[in-house]
Amino acid sequence: MLTQQSTNDLYNDFCERMRRVADIKYAAAVLQWDQETYMPAQGADGRARQLATLSEIAHAHSTDAQLVNLVKELQGRGDLDAKQQRNVALTAEDIEKQQKFSNAFVRQLSEAVSKAFNAWIAARRENSFSHFSGALGELVVLKKQEADLLGYEAHPYNALVKDYEKSMDVGKLDAVFTAITGPLQQIMAQIAQQPQPDESFLHRFYPKQKQWDWGMYLVKELGFDLQSGRQDISEHPFTTNFSAKDVRITTRIDEQDFANMTWSCIHEAGHALYEQGLPDADYGLPSGEYASLSIHESQSRLWENSVGRGIDFWQHYYPVLQGYFPEALAGIELPHFYKAINKVKPSLIRTEADEITYHFHVKVRYQLEKELIGGEVAVQDIPARWNQLYHDNLGVTVPDDKNGCLQDVHWSHGSFGYFPTYSLGSFYASQFWAKANEQLPQLKEQLRSGNSQPLLQWLRKHIHAEGRLLESEDLCRKVTGEPLNINYFITYLKSKYTP
Amino acid sequence: MLTQQSTNDLYNDFCERMRRVADIKYAAAVLQWDQETYMPAQGADGRARQLATLSEIAHAHSTDAQLVNLVKELQGRGDLDAKQQRNVALTAEDIEKQQKFSNAFVRQLSEAVSKAFNAWIAARRENSFSHFSGALGELVVLKKQEADLLGYEAHPYNALVKDYEKSMDVGKLDAVFTAITGPLQQIMAQIAQQPQPDESFLHRFYPKQKQWDWGMYLVKELGFDLQSGRQDISEHPFTTNFSAKDVRITTRIDEQDFANMTWSCIHEAGHALYEQGLPDADYGLPSGEYASLSIHESQSRLWENSVGRGIDFWQHYYPVLQGYFPEALAGIELPHFYKAINKVKPSLIRTEADEITYHFHVKVRYQLEKELIGGEVAVQDIPARWNQLYHDNLGVTVPDDKNGCLQDVHWSHGSFGYFPTYSLGSFYASQFWAKANEQLPQLKEQLRSGNSQPLLQWLRKHIHAEGRLLESEDLCRKVTGEPLNINYFITYLKSKYTP
Repeated sequence: MLTQQSTNDLYNDFCERMRRVADIKYAAAVLQWDQETYMPAQGADGRARQLATLSEIAHAHSTDAQLVNLVKELQGRGDLDAKQQRNVALTAEDIEKQQKFSNAFVRQLSEAVSKAFNAWIAARRENSFSHFSGALGELVVLKKQEADLLGYEAHPYNALVKDYEKSMDVGKLDAVFTAITGPLQQIMAQIAQQPQPDESFLHRFYPKQKQWDWGMYLVKELGFDLQSGRQDISEHPFTTNFSAKDVRITTRIDEQDFANMTWSCIHEAGHALYEQGLPDADYGLPSGEYASLSIHESQSRLWENSVGRGIDFWQHYYPVLQGYFPEALAGIELPHFYKAINKVKPSLIRTEADEITYHFHVKVRYQLEKELIGGEVAVQDIPARWNQLYHDNLGVTVPDDKNGCLQDVHWSHGSFGYFPTYSLGSFYASQFWAKANEQLPQLKEQLRSGNSQPLLQWLRKHIHAEGRLLESEDLCRKVTGEPLNINYFITYLKSKYTP
Repeated sequence: MLTQQSTNDLYNDFCERMRRVADIKYAAAVLQWDQETYMPAQGADGRARQLATLSEIAHAHSTDAQLVNLVKELQGRGDLDAKQQRNVALTAEDIEKQQKFSNAFVRQLSEAVSKAFNAWIAARRENSFSHFSGALGELVVLKKQEADLLGYEAHPYNALVKDYEKSMDVGKLDAVFTAITGPLQQIMAQIAQQPQPDESFLHRFYPKQKQWDWGMYLVKELGFDLQSGRQDISEHPFTTNFSAKDVRITTRIDEQDFANMTWSCIHEAGHALYEQGLPDADYGLPSGEYASLSIHESQSRLWENSVGRGIDFWQHYYPVLQGYFPEALAGIELPHFYKAINKVKPSLIRTEADEITYHFHVKVRYQLEKELIGGEVAVQDIPARWNQLYHDNLGVTVPDDKNGCLQDVHWSHGSFGYFPTYSLGSFYASQFWAKANEQLPQLKEQLRSGNSQPLLQWLRKHIHAEGRLLESEDLCRKVTGEPLNINYFITYLKSKYTP
């Protein structure tokens, strides 16, 4: 049958089927967004069922025999253009992966994630890992099973990490974290010689409503389109989207901590600008999706740090900020503010870390995930191991689980293998930032006048519009002329932090 | 195959399949809730796609051959208990109805509804029916097609009205509206002889945030469980639910109109209390659902009017209300307040109408829907016909579309046949209210002390816990000892409004 149809008809049929799979996945994403923002507590059981059913249906549709045949037939056609070929090839890859799971396994995993997420919320409320360990344990068993089903070489964690960054594995990640550790420690040692800024004013009283208004102002200034997105409050900040025209970010507010919300807003806005810049016409197709999680994080980290912790940016926005918080910022001049928001100091919470020690936070999670998935650490031993790793890597003593192993939402989502992309993303960010500054010689000046839109347009053109047409490394090469090179990151840090 | 399995196994299989269908329908309801509360404007196209796909999938699952066979087999089994029999019989009815629609028709209808809803929002913003008429026209064509597919006797509107109240048709509804018109006009004539209260204080300035706080206080006082539900803002107030443990209500706030939000809160809370009182263990089964739309409206109208416009209720809450709005209510004593909130006066907006003229609002919509579905009135002629019917039935002149034919959301949802249930619900409400007062002799006294919970418990026991086990008329007979009798409503009005 299929062989008689024109390639064009087949490809259109393929696209429509893919859009329907996307409809189901985005519908599930709406339910998840609601779960983390507005859902009443008692809604959890029903929501878990509903998400499990949608996951199962999405899985069934994405491995449906008719779609599978269509993809096979299209792979044999010689008259697809490059983008069409890429869409078909990536879908074939995805199908091959999905076929390794049964509908029942997908359902079970979804149910375990919902259970773990609710347990994590409860555990944070009680500040006790013990409320989380049972549900997390069940989830870890399933994630190990997932690794076995997917298959792997060398280490089961490799199977999971590839979900977030296809070209990565334990060997490469070990090498990256080893390569970065020395230079980071060297820079930290140099910083330790310098006088330390007093950042206590960041912990004065910053009223909730004012912080909210400031955060909304900020994300709009960065170019986040509120006709195609919104911001809300959640336990852990995140970005999700239901199309390029409906992108949701969340934040959280601590009245005693100015930094918490501000850089979470900038970080999530960075993700959101990427999503809003993806080719909306390719809804449901790989070419309409983000390149990889590492590239996604490169966007959030670029805005958060290269832009949002830069002196040029604050030259314009600091007076505005003072208008929002005249009391808390009374007597604090810009140079002092700038030093304080860039104070390098090992701390407990990843999302609040400076851009240097941040990578030790990631390294701890990477280490622990490897051990957990590899079976070297049992779930109930996570707090002890966490605390030890924090002591060894950051030299800090973890006082309780909320400031320790309960701080991140990711494990409750079953997202093992995600964290390394935060570091990779930061490295990509520095490389993109260097290229942007080269190609936009007025960039610093533009930022100093509060105009970040030329930078956004540059990112839109070179990265966002590319969708998932290229792998991370190839995209990096296309944008910067070379593959990922951590020296850009080191150079960036040195020029910023050392005299 | 099936014939070898035990009835118990078959019934359990049936239940799980039904729960999965419910999962999909509730997921769609989450997307709809989001669409009407928080979705950014540009998200509309993606959302329309997603809802269409979910509708199609829900339809496919609810007419799936395995479910159909299961239901057939179960209908032949003699060892089902009464509740099981009812669940199977109602599902068979529903399947028979759903089988009349193709998946493609269901998808088309869903797309048309999304388009019409967005057009309605735009039309309200522009205060012009012309922005709505195109999309509404397409929807009306499909609703006529739906009536044809369903089949009907006498009038195509009968096919649609049965979706909301199975036992109703044009003949019976004509009779009800005819029967009620004379007595209502008589009471109105008597009221016209009395001195008219000055209700202008209801249009003083009632600050938004204070109204919100008051509305939240009120719904909690009525027993709305915020662990199992929430309230938000939308263009048109509504209630939806995703299980008995996740019930969402919405309201709207007009700072120049105290009545608008208050009675919408009470009305929607009435719906929500019903949903929260349904048997949660029967999630996905008819026995876990509401009896009918008329019974649903009986709950909202009972709380809104019998309770919420009663002197006993305000004896307790008026002092509280004065605490919320000390300026706007300065110098207004309870008797004056009570008279004002019960002022009978033909007006433009249904949701703000007094409990007598309200039914002329419903009558207008009923008349117009019949004419529209019957082909006697064309879509583009709706404003003119609406304005004429308002002139003829309520004696008012409609100044613009927003205060006229654009005021209600229902048509944009494709809900033709829904409006009559508002009147039927009010009549049921009076009958239930009379019985409740008979069986709870302390009721008035309890309300005077701010305790509406014995009434809620009575409704829970006699109506909510029944789910959809009985048809409206049978439920009415079980609760009150007789079928629907509009004299209870007339008697209630007479004793309240005439000396």
